[in-house]
Amino acid sequence: MNNPRKPIDRFHAIIPAGGVGSRLWPLSRASAPKFLHDLTGSGQTLLQDTWDRVTPITTVDRTMIVTGSAHEEAVKAQLPKLSSANLVIEDSPKDSTAAIALAAAILARREPDVIIGSFAADHVIQDGPAFRAAVAEGIELAATDRIVVIGIQPTEPSVGFGYIKTGEAISVPGAPSALTVDKFVEKPKLDRAKKYVESGKYLWNAGMFIAPASLLLRQLSKSEPELHAGILELAAAWDTDQKASAIKKVWPTLKKVAIDYSIAEPAAEAGFVAVIPGTFSWHDVGDFAAIAELQSQGRKNNLAVLGSARVLSDSSSGILVSDTKRMIAVIGLEDVIIVDTPDALLVTNKENAQKVKALVDSLKATGHDEIL
Amino acid sequence: MNNPRKPIDRFHAIIPAGGVGSRLWPLSRASAPKFLHDLTGSGQTLLQDTWDRVTPITTVDRTMIVTGSAHEEAVKAQLPKLSSANLVIEDSPKDSTAAIALAAAILARREPDVIIGSFAADHVIQDGPAFRAAVAEGIELAATDRIVVIGIQPTEPSVGFGYIKTGEAISVPGAPSALTVDKFVEKPKLDRAKKYVESGKYLWNAGMFIAPASLLLRQLSKSEPELHAGILELAAAWDTDQKASAIKKVWPTLKKVAIDYSIAEPAAEAGFVAVIPGTFSWHDVGDFAAIAELQSQGRKNNLAVLGSARVLSDSSSGILVSDTKRMIAVIGLEDVIIVDTPDALLVTNKENAQKVKALVDSLKATGHDEIL
Repeated sequence: MNNPRKPIDRFHAIIPAGGVGSRLWPLSRASAPKFLHDLTGSGQTLLQDTWDRVTPITTVDRTMIVTGSAHEEAVKAQLPKLSSANLVIEDSPKDSTAAIALAAAILARREPDVIIGSFAADHVIQDGPAFRAAVAEGIELAATDRIVVIGIQPTEPSVGFGYIKTGEAISVPGAPSALTVDKFVEKPKLDRAKKYVESGKYLWNAGMFIAPASLLLRQLSKSEPELHAGILELAAAWDTDQKASAIKKVWPTLKKVAIDYSIAEPAAEAGFVAVIPGTFSWHDVGDFAAIAELQSQGRKNNLAVLGSARVLSDSSSGILVSDTKRMIAVIGLEDVIIVDTPDALLVTNKENAQKVKALVDSLKATGHDEIL
Repeated sequence: MNNPRKPIDRFHAIIPAGGVGSRLWPLSRASAPKFLHDLTGSGQTLLQDTWDRVTPITTVDRTMIVTGSAHEEAVKAQLPKLSSANLVIEDSPKDSTAAIALAAAILARREPDVIIGSFAADHVIQDGPAFRAAVAEGIELAATDRIVVIGIQPTEPSVGFGYIKTGEAISVPGAPSALTVDKFVEKPKLDRAKKYVESGKYLWNAGMFIAPASLLLRQLSKSEPELHAGILELAAAWDTDQKASAIKKVWPTLKKVAIDYSIAEPAAEAGFVAVIPGTFSWHDVGDFAAIAELQSQGRKNNLAVLGSARVLSDSSSGILVSDTKRMIAVIGLEDVIIVDTPDALLVTNKENAQKVKALVDSLKATGHDEIL
């Protein structure tokens, strides 16, 4: 590829802000999903943390948010520097391929040589410089016409994440840690996860990737041609007065499919996916046990508190998340999880944190939508 | 004693309704103590349950309540049949001797040969007929000029109650199970409690007693002559227009002392205390663990629910007490105690239920009176 612009100058970040995070009920709701909450005690929401982590790589003018119409106002309020051209509102949820490919297609029409990077709005990364160094390598690598994932060096044999099997080193200037990707593997069982970690060849798949928009759309045209056509039609109308009618016509027809299946895995099989191993710590904070781990780093027998509650704790550990100003007393409980909101209360422990999703599903099934 | 009236016709019940029950915080508060709550799921408060248990022995006209001025309106609302002559309001808390002796002295002025029985407003007794049979024996026995306690056959070596050491059988018509009392003993350590229960000679002291009012006051005049004089002065003014001025003058001078020390123990030493062993089940429901036991009788691995919460429980046991209409989800917790009120939440387990008192004490010490 010969391009007159430097890769970094072609870069535009995309932050898909979707997903309810039902394992984080009753804090995370359809009306106030995970990314709109402060789950780290940073004083900012995960969305704001993500914005602050990403914008130094490019600029606030080159960072786009894709979110649902229900969250438009909250996102604008949390990100006052976000320009309207960089806010893509989903008419209804259509999963990650539609969200990211539409953003990529809109950007590609504005700037055909754009390189996009997609970073979820609801993950936690505390070492911003290391993150940005990995992304900088990823941009250089992506400019060689590759889809680049940022993998995470595993710190334990987690069964909660998918893995990336790495291959050979790739020699690309500005991307000294680049490796080929052999394949993506789904969430493993524990014994397999242990082998992965021992082998030193596997990284966690954190769902972060960087690619020329044109390459991404080319892959989509092969694996999901109808979805690709719909996305292009939307993108062509997006910056015109035809936008509303195009949404009305095309949006309902968009196929729901995760970008892992539509783009990442087929591209890996075709051999043009590469990886930059990230050395920064990364958490998807998928459940309250993960938040508790994050909060209690280095402190044993500690009850971490997030939120505004007045708390009295006697020999308890775990996490208490509060959305109220109530007095909360906790006595003698180990690894407890307490989530206190005005209309719903959850009490469980770390061991059972994953079961919150099943509980939310049963609330859905029994028609309790008002608290979901 | 020769008295023209039958003992049962001379009987008047007294229900002292006092004590915050700080081990039951945050449900039980200074403003809404234990006896004003439904802790059994009966649909009635403990006070109402006590009233319904006692009034069939005598009549609603011969049942008196002694309570603090803060609870006057709540007591009237809960007991619409209570006559104003039978409601004694404490100007300020002066412990159990003043409360019960004042009621006894007021009744003795109205009816010199009255036999009074005192039954706490915040205990749970589920077998009403057996309770009333024991009281009927106690009244006959008391009429022989004795102070009669109703002891409870222990079902376990509890360290939470005082014990009564029983002596010889007493032959009194109408009181076939009457025994002398050797002595009262304070709450024992576990090994001693086990010996007590094994011996078959010890009963739990449930604080229920029956005696001629005149005998009770005679004992008080010996052990606490100043308090006795104050009580008589108050009682003399009670049914006159001098009541308010007598309260103003005398009430602040009344000594605070538990009736166990002022009357029961000295009378036992003097040899005129007797006991009727009660065969009914009795609970003082002193903490949430006791309420959980009471609620889960016969059911293992069950989360008992008291109150108005909508509850979703997945493999949890223990008790949930709710004063709110929130949705409460509990997952995978054993013997948990959750008490949910509008301004305070307690989460602990059965093992730590007794520690609630220390927590309330620390709230007191740190000036959090608004939630006590």
